[in-house]
Amino acid sequence: MTKLHAVGLVTEYNPFHNGHLYHLTTAKRQTGADVVVAVMSGNFTQRGEPTILDKWTRAQAALANGVDLVVELPVFHAVQPAHRFAAGALQLLDALQVEQIVFGAEHPEWDFDQLVAAEAQFDPQEFHDYHATYASQFNAQLAAQTGYSLTDPNDILAFSYYKARHEAGYQFDLQPMQRIANYYHQQTITGTIASASAIRQAVQTKQAIDDTVPEATAAALAQLINVPDWDTLYPILRNQLIQTPVQQLAQYYQMGEGIEYRMQAAAERSLTFADFIKQVKTKRYTYAYLTRLCLYVTLGITKSEVANAVANPYLHVLGFSDQGQAYLSQIKKTVTLPLIVKVDQDLKAGMLKLDYRAGKLYQMFTPVEQDLKHAPIRRLSRK
Amino acid sequence: MTKLHAVGLVTEYNPFHNGHLYHLTTAKRQTGADVVVAVMSGNFTQRGEPTILDKWTRAQAALANGVDLVVELPVFHAVQPAHRFAAGALQLLDALQVEQIVFGAEHPEWDFDQLVAAEAQFDPQEFHDYHATYASQFNAQLAAQTGYSLTDPNDILAFSYYKARHEAGYQFDLQPMQRIANYYHQQTITGTIASASAIRQAVQTKQAIDDTVPEATAAALAQLINVPDWDTLYPILRNQLIQTPVQQLAQYYQMGEGIEYRMQAAAERSLTFADFIKQVKTKRYTYAYLTRLCLYVTLGITKSEVANAVANPYLHVLGFSDQGQAYLSQIKKTVTLPLIVKVDQDLKAGMLKLDYRAGKLYQMFTPVEQDLKHAPIRRLSRK
Repeated sequence: MTKLHAVGLVTEYNPFHNGHLYHLTTAKRQTGADVVVAVMSGNFTQRGEPTILDKWTRAQAALANGVDLVVELPVFHAVQPAHRFAAGALQLLDALQVEQIVFGAEHPEWDFDQLVAAEAQFDPQEFHDYHATYASQFNAQLAAQTGYSLTDPNDILAFSYYKARHEAGYQFDLQPMQRIANYYHQQTITGTIASASAIRQAVQTKQAIDDTVPEATAAALAQLINVPDWDTLYPILRNQLIQTPVQQLAQYYQMGEGIEYRMQAAAERSLTFADFIKQVKTKRYTYAYLTRLCLYVTLGITKSEVANAVANPYLHVLGFSDQGQAYLSQIKKTVTLPLIVKVDQDLKAGMLKLDYRAGKLYQMFTPVEQDLKHAPIRRLSRK
Repeated sequence: MTKLHAVGLVTEYNPFHNGHLYHLTTAKRQTGADVVVAVMSGNFTQRGEPTILDKWTRAQAALANGVDLVVELPVFHAVQPAHRFAAGALQLLDALQVEQIVFGAEHPEWDFDQLVAAEAQFDPQEFHDYHATYASQFNAQLAAQTGYSLTDPNDILAFSYYKARHEAGYQFDLQPMQRIANYYHQQTITGTIASASAIRQAVQTKQAIDDTVPEATAAALAQLINVPDWDTLYPILRNQLIQTPVQQLAQYYQMGEGIEYRMQAAAERSLTFADFIKQVKTKRYTYAYLTRLCLYVTLGITKSEVANAVANPYLHVLGFSDQGQAYLSQIKKTVTLPLIVKVDQDLKAGMLKLDYRAGKLYQMFTPVEQDLKHAPIRRLSRK
């Protein structure tokens, strides 16, 4: 049997749209890979928001449009700042033996390895100005030393992939590709390519989005009654913040610098998520940092649980095509992480418990069980 | 100045209705008291349900209809089986120096002191049949020994008052009065007297209730959009049960006999409160026991917090008439418990923290702050 070659993608698919289709088609053509492997965030995004569609629906749309294998990026890797998100995703793609990773960047022509080398000289202790975010202080120093300004979101992720590869010594090729349009911050829909956030916004305001997404996504979004959001989760977060002693709040992942006091006081005073965030926000913390922290609190995920989870990685397969299945057969004897195709009671209470809890919280938006006994989606490959 | 004499009532006023008005008018006439003092449950009932109106609105209706002083029965006393509920209420009425307590009973002619004496001989270890509730086993033994069957709800409370007085050595008179009709279990409204549960049911189904309640209650109920219920609180309870390790669930008040495992498993499987309770229910546990337990879990109230709270009782004044204020002046130098008229930051974080948390949860039903800086309601007495 001929050996199958795989290209890896790091994705959220929130939701899967025409830009993603273009990305995967280009990646496959550019690399000549036989198999497209996507590592995809589960039910919560990097910024700590619930995804617009659940992970199974998003995996199905990806499979229907050419992805061959979808593996979940666990919540403790997915809901993280860029460098940890990237490190988690690359760990899984390395275990899945992909040979290249293709990703969009605003400046694919940059020498990201040079930036990584420059950053390695930084002392993180220097970024403790409490009136600015860590990211902005870091970027100011990088710009001062290299002349590059790392402010576009896909450039930041690209940098993070190079950094993760450097630190872990992975062998795969990293192939940045030009974003076809700088549409990330664009909030209105024109033509057939729009950003995921513009599409979510359009769904929220009941605008047409069918030109911008493949049929599988359009069909799923058409059935959506309410767009998942933090307003719905806030009563749970609020009660958790109020009834948990601050000493115990301090044990939650990413809680530090006394922000637990600030969050508890804000929760007591605020009846809506918007008011709450406004009261908690300072120049020191980004919205994304705070929203991620809110998710960790709501899920009751502690620092030691994350440390334990990070030390015990796994590959949770959400779906595959025939080609993806053949690829799994090819790697299964040499794969270096546990390959999980069905979550049983032991996994639910053990290795996968954080994803399981995240899935139970996501049931605020769908009655569908998100993990236990859920079989991977199978789909015939389109030849 | 002439000494004022007070009669005490133990109430939930959920909501305040014509039966309550009859009760307090009769109590005052029968005892010749100058002042009517009501100890009233806060925002959650003895059965662990959220009250139909918040404690301030219910206190206001009581004051408007002849009660002179309303003191909150704290959540750790109010949400309890009859004997603890009664003991907590009588402790407050004793501290408030009332001379009589008047309460309804289905059989006011019974010799409750004799039943208390009989019960004192029981060995509670005998009631560990796991296929029946404690109450039903207790009652079977009482009936076997005394011939009395303690099954009507107000008889059970009456018994509990006698038992509490006996155990604590209180001096006040206990005066059971005949319930004017056995309307407790009656679920339809006829005439001007209906049970609180029939009234709540009628509000839920948008039936007229104005004949059965005084104007203050009718006006408040007319503004109610949704009747507070556990369906609304269930997402919070569910997440709490799922994300808290069972060892920690076992620390919550009233959790025992391994029911934490049963509750966690039921929460994982159930998307509605009704399904959840159905899955948890056994012959061993009453619905009231389970609902109370649900409240303690949702509020994160531990065994040690309740032990501490019970050891540090207080009198939180919700409102008074001129007569009630004069009575407070009369007793304030000799009152044996802390008299609280305004909850400040220290009380909120200290002695009153469980009521405060309960009030924050009750904000699922009203935007009104329930404790912090809330001044007592003042009302001119009707002469």
